[in-house]
Amino acid sequence: MNRENRAVVLLSGGLDSTTVTAIVHSSGMEICALSFSYGQKHTAELEMAGRTAEKYLISEHLIVDIDPEPFRGSSLTGTGRIPREGITAEIPSTYIPARNTVFLSMALGVAETRDAEFIFTGVNAIDYSGYPDCRPEYIDAFQKLADLATRSSVEGRPIRILAPLMHMTKAEIIRKGLDLGVDYSHTLSCYSPDLNGRSCGLCDACRLRLEGFRKNGTKDPAPYV
Amino acid sequence: MNRENRAVVLLSGGLDSTTVTAIVHSSGMEICALSFSYGQKHTAELEMAGRTAEKYLISEHLIVDIDPEPFRGSSLTGTGRIPREGITAEIPSTYIPARNTVFLSMALGVAETRDAEFIFTGVNAIDYSGYPDCRPEYIDAFQKLADLATRSSVEGRPIRILAPLMHMTKAEIIRKGLDLGVDYSHTLSCYSPDLNGRSCGLCDACRLRLEGFRKNGTKDPAPYV
Repeated sequence: MNRENRAVVLLSGGLDSTTVTAIVHSSGMEICALSFSYGQKHTAELEMAGRTAEKYLISEHLIVDIDPEPFRGSSLTGTGRIPREGITAEIPSTYIPARNTVFLSMALGVAETRDAEFIFTGVNAIDYSGYPDCRPEYIDAFQKLADLATRSSVEGRPIRILAPLMHMTKAEIIRKGLDLGVDYSHTLSCYSPDLNGRSCGLCDACRLRLEGFRKNGTKDPAPYV
Repeated sequence: MNRENRAVVLLSGGLDSTTVTAIVHSSGMEICALSFSYGQKHTAELEMAGRTAEKYLISEHLIVDIDPEPFRGSSLTGTGRIPREGITAEIPSTYIPARNTVFLSMALGVAETRDAEFIFTGVNAIDYSGYPDCRPEYIDAFQKLADLATRSSVEGRPIRILAPLMHMTKAEIIRKGLDLGVDYSHTLSCYSPDLNGRSCGLCDACRLRLEGFRKNGTKDPAPYV
């Protein structure tokens, strides 16, 4: 396959990245899935990422360990409390310093070594938690950086960062995924699932997700406590 | 100390980053030194980084492990041959995909969690190997990304990326370091030192370094084979 048919997909195992994987897969592209183990409390999402990689017969699924030290200070990796009161106008404590910048940087290295033209990320800025590194202007800035950062780009083979969910509501994302046959019982969005992998239903990620299914008139197949 | 007196310094243990560390130290800033173990052949540079951290009484020296998988394909981490014929107009095989982007991304996370206003990097674009991610336009693009990427920046506490050596020749960098009392015997630039930590004298990094000392009329105190 040529490079325009190869993509690195950032696959956390959550609802958004799994939907993106289904979208890219339906286009017939060859996928390298990239997941990260970075000390997140919700490592069960990595199992879900593995199931998605199996379902779509993805030939290469990298799970990269990242030292959690630089991410110290987020309730998602540290000892802080995950907020359950609902989404506010502020950036929540689950924000992880520079997370998407680190993830996209790694993806850039992987895309260049695999000679893949595309990097797909599931970030979106409609029904989201307010993280700064999920906004369209952030993705645009990363594209400008990528155009200068790699030998591939400098030599006329640019790597393109695509965020197909950016302007979709959570309900629209779920609709798209259901149309493509995504099994959402094999995705995990919750920031603090219990030991059996059941979602809390109260954290920001659960609230956005449940509302998305409600608006589609369907029930979320994932287990809740 | 306030955030304007705190800096994260990318310290590889080479000539450039050690000089930057001396510059930042001489300004009286509190330093968090950040080094990476990423499968490089020249891990002896990390020992040098440790010596520099000791010399400048740096209170926090992080050595972060990075999975070398995304960097596959460089002669600096893989099985390829390190070029010894001298510097050409092309990007050499020692180029590592997205390396500086990954390093700066990690530094951004560390700077935000430590509430440090500055990130210092030793990249320079005069006497260099032609890597795309060492050019001023690349650093400018990373600054624009950083301004959008972090909670800190969004809330009015920007993190600034500084590359004080950017427009200096290797000879000027060495002159500056000597003035500040840098002991260059405790730095390693060579891409393929022998098991005793002696430099080869022939790789691009050695050639640039030796020429820099020669122009200063002094001998490089580092051991060569």
